[in-house]
Amino acid sequence: SHFRVWIINAEKSEFNEDQAACGKLCIRRCEFGVEEDQEWLSLCPGEFLTGHYWALFDGHGGPAAAILAANTLHSCLRRQLEAVVEGLVATQPPMHLSGCCVCTSDPQFVEEKGIRTEDLVIGALENAFQECDDVIGRELEASGQVGGCTALVAVSLQGKLYVANAGDSRAILVRRDEIRPLSSELTPETERQRIQQLAFVYPELLAGEFTRLEFPRRLKGDDLGQKVLFRDHHMNGWSYKRVEKPDLKYPLIHGQGRQARLLGTLAVSRGLGDHQLRVLDTNIQLKPFLLSVPQVTVLDMDQLTLQEEDVVVMATDGLWDVLSNEQVARLVRSFLPGNREDPHRFSELAKMLIHSTQGKDSATGDGQVSYDDVSVFVIPLFSQGRADRGH
Amino acid sequence: SHFRVWIINAEKSEFNEDQAACGKLCIRRCEFGVEEDQEWLSLCPGEFLTGHYWALFDGHGGPAAAILAANTLHSCLRRQLEAVVEGLVATQPPMHLSGCCVCTSDPQFVEEKGIRTEDLVIGALENAFQECDDVIGRELEASGQVGGCTALVAVSLQGKLYVANAGDSRAILVRRDEIRPLSSELTPETERQRIQQLAFVYPELLAGEFTRLEFPRRLKGDDLGQKVLFRDHHMNGWSYKRVEKPDLKYPLIHGQGRQARLLGTLAVSRGLGDHQLRVLDTNIQLKPFLLSVPQVTVLDMDQLTLQEEDVVVMATDGLWDVLSNEQVARLVRSFLPGNREDPHRFSELAKMLIHSTQGKDSATGDGQVSYDDVSVFVIPLFSQGRADRGH
Repeated sequence: SHFRVWIINAEKSEFNEDQAACGKLCIRRCEFGVEEDQEWLSLCPGEFLTGHYWALFDGHGGPAAAILAANTLHSCLRRQLEAVVEGLVATQPPMHLSGCCVCTSDPQFVEEKGIRTEDLVIGALENAFQECDDVIGRELEASGQVGGCTALVAVSLQGKLYVANAGDSRAILVRRDEIRPLSSELTPETERQRIQQLAFVYPELLAGEFTRLEFPRRLKGDDLGQKVLFRDHHMNGWSYKRVEKPDLKYPLIHGQGRQARLLGTLAVSRGLGDHQLRVLDTNIQLKPFLLSVPQVTVLDMDQLTLQEEDVVVMATDGLWDVLSNEQVARLVRSFLPGNREDPHRFSELAKMLIHSTQGKDSATGDGQVSYDDVSVFVIPLFSQGRADRGH
Repeated sequence: SHFRVWIINAEKSEFNEDQAACGKLCIRRCEFGVEEDQEWLSLCPGEFLTGHYWALFDGHGGPAAAILAANTLHSCLRRQLEAVVEGLVATQPPMHLSGCCVCTSDPQFVEEKGIRTEDLVIGALENAFQECDDVIGRELEASGQVGGCTALVAVSLQGKLYVANAGDSRAILVRRDEIRPLSSELTPETERQRIQQLAFVYPELLAGEFTRLEFPRRLKGDDLGQKVLFRDHHMNGWSYKRVEKPDLKYPLIHGQGRQARLLGTLAVSRGLGDHQLRVLDTNIQLKPFLLSVPQVTVLDMDQLTLQEEDVVVMATDGLWDVLSNEQVARLVRSFLPGNREDPHRFSELAKMLIHSTQGKDSATGDGQVSYDDVSVFVIPLFSQGRADRGH
């Protein structure tokens, strides 16, 4: 396949904690009807809505959650899409699925709310992530395993590319004269207000061991009674407060950038799994602060006038720790034109990007080395835009 | 003054529910010190940091809250700014106010967090709105009055213009070749997920009378058992669910655009007051769903190369209901150049904008009429950029 994933195990853990999955997404079209108060459903064999699916999972606390996610999420998504397929093939989602409108003004209300077909795919992705998280929770408990993972998913369907992200992986669009981020990182730092807000509403989640407030650095005994910079859940700005004893506790969110940690434990604030995860030597659970629901962005490929070398680069944080979006784009743009004859050039490009994180390629200039697992998908959009437009 | 506000009472209620305030903001600089474990504070008479303040309050349920806000918010803000004034006049806010750093690496942590002087002003605005809301709550209770109001505040300080918004008023920057929104409306529609989330966490807030879910229209008995479009707090997209009896309840958020209502009662989701407000004939309180904290945007006037006719237009929803940003910009650009000799031209422009909502001016093309109260400030930035830069 053109879409082989390249994964490298940095050997920071015994098993590779990065997992990947990709493949064709076949969504069966069903026919519904109502007969004598009995609803019936008949599959139309051979009638499919087809798309493509790519997914990266970056595990932590062991590979179990990432492996389960790689084996499960695509079926959750297929099921969610099949449940709304009638709406997907309509020009506008109908108010009522598998039935006529109850009210003659129904289409007008759907119109006023601005509900489009793509909203059903976004909803299906949101629900699939949640369903998959439930499955992982049950499976881990049943098998006595632990762990969690981030999830970054791209789906090409009906001429659109959907990117769903829960965690700190990243997808970018690289074109000849454009670099467009298709996801943003969801970490304790970027989701500070949501997390502080929850601790404000449920202070018992911190069990008296952590402070909800953010300070520029961890406070010490010396700071007692002084006025120091701080911010609370309702603030985007900063203010000063006089330090009291509870402020000396370990902060709910601590550290900057890559080093930011939730409850001293996790570097991400969204993902799948972690149902059993607790702060070391305490009963404090991480899960209430984590969301499994992804942020979804939509790229309308039909609007783009795609060129043959327009690609989406999806990768786990191991790549983005050492290469910026601009550096990746430079590598893409220098690699592809010289390899036009190679049928495996997109796959080779993914391999080359991985190698660039190992100090093996001088193209990065500074030869930085990633000590994390790294996984990369390169998705050529030109063929996608054509392949998954129809139904 | 150049900054007179123009307010018109639409007589939809006995009193004008729009209120305005503006004036110079004088922030005293204090000197702090510590002497034998006693902190002392001495005012430096004559030493001021000065800025300008403009505020619009759109009341509902009577004018009491709007009047209190117009009389109170500027002093809350002055107090909040005076409490951090040492940080405001520093090139970077210090970790410790009124004292030396406890730890030699303190400035580095402030640097890493990217905390700037403007973050202190944002924090002061956020805290001032909350403080003012508390004052209004106490005053209304003590005097047996009721009501609430939106608040839109602009502050010019140290070469920057801060716009803080809680509600559905709006401020825009109009320049010769640019229109830039400086606020966004905070309504039950734009804050749907936050509001649904709260009802998910605290279902008792709905007292079994409302449904948290959003549907394209209110459901009826006919819809029972059918699959209809819906979305819940975690969803940006839409999905289908089978209608059950509780789904027929009145929705937590109902209606589209201007007609959207929170609990069938309020058109805004942020503002001051409303501490006693309940859904008609029930004990269901609105206040838990309302935020008093504003969204703040910052305009760096020094970065703009200001022209003499660059203005900020602030107005309550009565103006924006009938005039788009583009229509207002067109009126501004056609009015100012022809009135260069008039020392009151900015004030006259505000008056003209108000008249345009009364069908008295043909410039709007369609001569739409606003039946709401309308208040407009026109702030000429050219002089501001100069006036409030120093300290």
